[in-house]
Amino acid sequence: MSKSAGCCKRFLHYAFDYETPKTLVIPSLGVGFVFRFTQFLVVMYVVGYVCVVQKAYQDTDTVISTVTTKVKGFAFTNTSDTEPRFWDVADYIIPPQGDHSFFVLTNMVVTPKQVQSRCPEVSHCCYKTDPITRPRAKGIQTGLCENYSTTARTCEVLSWCPLEIDTKLPEHALLAAAENFTVLIKNSITYPKFNFHRRNILPHVNSSYLKRCEFSRLTDPHCPIFRLKDIVSEAGEDFQDMAVKGGILGILIDWSCDLDWWAGECLPKYSFRRLDNKHPVNNVAPGYNFRFAKYYKTADGEETRTLIKAYGIRFDVIVFGTAGRFSIVPTIVNLGAALSFLSLVPVVADWFLVTCSRKRDLYSRHKTTHLTEDADSASVRDFSPSLSLMNLISTD
Amino acid sequence: MSKSAGCCKRFLHYAFDYETPKTLVIPSLGVGFVFRFTQFLVVMYVVGYVCVVQKAYQDTDTVISTVTTKVKGFAFTNTSDTEPRFWDVADYIIPPQGDHSFFVLTNMVVTPKQVQSRCPEVSHCCYKTDPITRPRAKGIQTGLCENYSTTARTCEVLSWCPLEIDTKLPEHALLAAAENFTVLIKNSITYPKFNFHRRNILPHVNSSYLKRCEFSRLTDPHCPIFRLKDIVSEAGEDFQDMAVKGGILGILIDWSCDLDWWAGECLPKYSFRRLDNKHPVNNVAPGYNFRFAKYYKTADGEETRTLIKAYGIRFDVIVFGTAGRFSIVPTIVNLGAALSFLSLVPVVADWFLVTCSRKRDLYSRHKTTHLTEDADSASVRDFSPSLSLMNLISTD
Amino acid sequence: MSKSAGCCKRFLHYAFDYETPKTLVIPSLGVGFVFRFTQFLVVMYVVGYVCVVQKAYQDTDTVISTVTTKVKGFAFTNTSDTEPRFWDVADYIIPPQGDHSFFVLTNMVVTPKQVQSRCPEVSHCCYKTDPITRPRAKGIQTGLCENYSTTARTCEVLSWCPLEIDTKLPEHALLAAAENFTVLIKNSITYPKFNFHRRNILPHVNSSYLKRCEFSRLTDPHCPIFRLKDIVSEAGEDFQDMAVKGGILGILIDWSCDLDWWAGECLPKYSFRRLDNKHPVNNVAPGYNFRFAKYYKTADGEETRTLIKAYGIRFDVIVFGTAGRFSIVPTIVNLGAALSFLSLVPVVADWFLVTCSRKRDLYSRHKTTHLTEDADSASVRDFSPSLSLMNLISTD
Repeated sequence: MSKSAGCCKRFLHYAFDYETPKTLVIPSLGVGFVFRFTQFLVVMYVVGYVCVVQKAYQDTDTVISTVTTKVKGFAFTNTSDTEPRFWDVADYIIPPQGDHSFFVLTNMVVTPKQVQSRCPEVSHCCYKTDPITRPRAKGIQTGLCENYSTTARTCEVLSWCPLEIDTKLPEHALLAAAENFTVLIKNSITYPKFNFHRRNILPHVNSSYLKRCEFSRLTDPHCPIFRLKDIVSEAGEDFQDMAVKGGILGILIDWSCDLDWWAGECLPKYSFRRLDNKHPVNNVAPGYNFRFAKYYKTADGEETRTLIKAYGIRFDVIVFGTAGRFSIVPTIVNLGAALSFLSLVPVVADWFLVTCSRKRDLYSRHKTTHLTEDADSASVRDFSPSLSLMNLISTD
Repeated sequence: MSKSAGCCKRFLHYAFDYETPKTLVIPSLGVGFVFRFTQFLVVMYVVGYVCVVQKAYQDTDTVISTVTTKVKGFAFTNTSDTEPRFWDVADYIIPPQGDHSFFVLTNMVVTPKQVQSRCPEVSHCCYKTDPITRPRAKGIQTGLCENYSTTARTCEVLSWCPLEIDTKLPEHALLAAAENFTVLIKNSITYPKFNFHRRNILPHVNSSYLKRCEFSRLTDPHCPIFRLKDIVSEAGEDFQDMAVKGGILGILIDWSCDLDWWAGECLPKYSFRRLDNKHPVNNVAPGYNFRFAKYYKTADGEETRTLIKAYGIRFDVIVFGTAGRFSIVPTIVNLGAALSFLSLVPVVADWFLVTCSRKRDLYSRHKTTHLTEDADSASVRDFSPSLSLMNLISTD
Repeated sequence: MSKSAGCCKRFLHYAFDYETPKTLVIPSLGVGFVFRFTQFLVVMYVVGYVCVVQKAYQDTDTVISTVTTKVKGFAFTNTSDTEPRFWDVADYIIPPQGDHSFFVLTNMVVTPKQVQSRCPEVSHCCYKTDPITRPRAKGIQTGLCENYSTTARTCEVLSWCPLEIDTKLPEHALLAAAENFTVLIKNSITYPKFNFHRRNILPHVNSSYLKRCEFSRLTDPHCPIFRLKDIVSEAGEDFQDMAVKGGILGILIDWSCDLDWWAGECLPKYSFRRLDNKHPVNNVAPGYNFRFAKYYKTADGEETRTLIKAYGIRFDVIVFGTAGRFSIVPTIVNLGAALSFLSLVPVVADWFLVTCSRKRDLYSRHKTTHLTEDADSASVRDFSPSLSLMNLISTD
């Protein structure tokens, strides 16, 4: 045999000789039962909890979405303070585009015909002894003290005059009729990782149904048209209460989906929740309002404006969700972790074997060989099976 | 030897005696090959699929982004219905701010000189025998029946009059020229977990190039200036078709990045997709439109408005992406899972050894020792090697 | 014994006989120490790094949030170019709603009294020999050449006239006073997976504090009212510099939270960062501006507009964060991975045992049995303990 052939053979032995642990089979029902039961627990956890409940075999992706909203309805206001007025969408929806967030005007303080000029402030009294500048004034103080009314003198300011008096907010919402407005919400989503697209108007819904339906959790759970009153009451609030000072209402669309083919349909789930804090404790500026102005020019070119402090409900359409689909990597990772625990099972069973089983001495004698510290080629400690065998021979 | 020294020694033995399985080396090429091949498969899966394809060694983060958009271009309209008019950005971009979502007006129904008054409805005929209230009216019905034209009588309503007649939508988009408008998209992103910031205007691009470039997938894939017509046609739509009734077009910027140093650059990938449903089946209010009004005051202080039902294309810039960077925890988790599978390999090889290999009886006789149920210190079942050895001696 | 009973017994043996590896205990302090030390390293990694540092035992969720902003403050401008003017919120906040993104007007180019007509262009000279159409014109070119001034002739365009001259941007921001405006940011967040809701106005903060407080990283880190100057300077910018040409400033709210009960409070962390590129290199249209118009009607019904090129700072409130809470699945996965590595420890110790330890020959002789290739029932290779035993007997 040549040298290289021998070398090659040695390499083959090195690479392909299979080293396997010697094992001892113990016919003990107790130990066997402990072993199988522990194995069963681990497998149950993996199959039952990890796979069925947590769906850990899935890869996940987060939703990307676009929302269009379109409010319909009109109102007529006729209070003692203001002129009779008809309101349509162009009047009360700000901004008009119908984005994922829309504001419905329900109450307001209107200050018409403001011009840039000088006028006395509303609430800050001034006397000759007073400092003429005051914090939180509503304009640039000129330093003069003017008659605000026959009884009060206030600091004069340079501002848009007359000043807004926003304490006179109507107690009942001006556009109380807004509760009967409806909103059509169109939502289209994508899970880019799975190339999955879906709309909240479901494929099996026909156009004629969409023209007359209205969302109801029980009878029409997939109609994309919502009555504002219903949205607010589902959030546990009263529309007329909320309309006075305004607020923010979340329309939450949950697109959490299981995209595996055996999991059936992927449907949006609607829920509604008030997002601002209506309680006056640890709060500032409760409700929701903002100021905007309409600018006009008089015939002689002077700019005037109508300032509107708008109270109302901002509806925020919040789309969220996570989709899962079978993927090999998380499956392998979770199976691997489970297998690791399976490899713990013999440790448990061995511990039971050598400490709790009836014939533990016999078992551990056959299972374990103890080398003595000063062992030479043949001397091993007493209770090794080979050695007891040797003893047997010696005594023979 | 003192008692404590003995105790200490016993503890040392307990803690540091090393228990290792006894093994049997089997010089079988078949079994060895099965063993190595199964090992190879597991290692290949880990290295090839988990590491290279899925990059499971990475920790991931989701993108946070800010977008600014700026449209440029102007148009001139001169149709039989309307006066000649020049349109610039301030006229057709609503809202003007240039946020991540911008709307380009392409078609419209204008109802000028509306005032709060009474007028007959447009489409609902009324006769003396009719109920005087009707659903879906366009104002508050006064209960009267008026001459709408010489031939038709309709219900009188209290509304912004004259009423809008939105059925007369121009068949060809009024601002057909909008297809040549361009939009500059500035997008700055952050992966907060990795403290990584990036802009879609790449560092190596110079300002003079930016002033004259235009996005083209082939020649200028990193120019942030897009011609609207190109965006729409990349999404597989025709601009002039889409401009008539409006629609929503997604400009998707994918910032999925591999931030490991060996992975090279992190670049935005643009794609375009129509997000609304243009098909009339299972749809409601196809296209995209909204109403807004410009408010004026006449010389005698009366408020008038011009109501505009605006049709157009809303462009939504949607930024998404997940960045990955090497992290020890997912690496360990995935390696651990792979190791678990490696620990399965001997199970497979053992099974092959005792069921399929040629000398399976010999191998299992040497590998496995069977304790009999009524075993005492020395009696083990027949085919244990030690025992066969004993037999050998006995027969000697 | 009946046949079925025998079958049953065989099944019991098959299912419940416990197969356990035979082991050899080696009383070597060196090997034992290597074994225990490697084990210790793995356990330390799991406990210390995976559990304590990375909190890999937690399931995570991404934040969902709503933001309301309300700016307060006013300014007075009195420059040589413009009339004295008072500015309040309704004038300088665009759009007025107070969404997660708000724009504060700080500088502007105003072009009043524009009407649809013809006028000569501002900067493009034209001669008789010139082509009469030019790129980047500011209107529809009529083909005529008009006197722009006494010295220059430019192309006539059909446009909103007079044309805007946006090169005359004031060098000092017009609304320099905007640096003292304050903004109240209300932010309410949800982690839907954990059903966890929180507001940035903390429960222990009372309303009177909120009325007078102002954010300061050191003294008032949880006050939701921010002075614009402070925001900009925390981002490392100068307000007056930034106000001239505008920019985008990110108000980042980090809600990363540990929701386990032992982890204490979940508080927002504010940070500020300029999001646009202020450097002129590899940039286009630096700063932040947009054009909008206010439309008026003259007494004789002609439409005029005031075009405003608005420069200012857009503040984007960006809410991000990931919450973690103990969950059994990631815990199991991470423990499993760690266990896998623990199962590697004996491999390391065995390698040390048979290659580096002093008595390696003795150890490997007792640990490993080599079957010879032509082995029959009793022949095993030389250095198996049983065989050496046989030799012992033979020589006896």
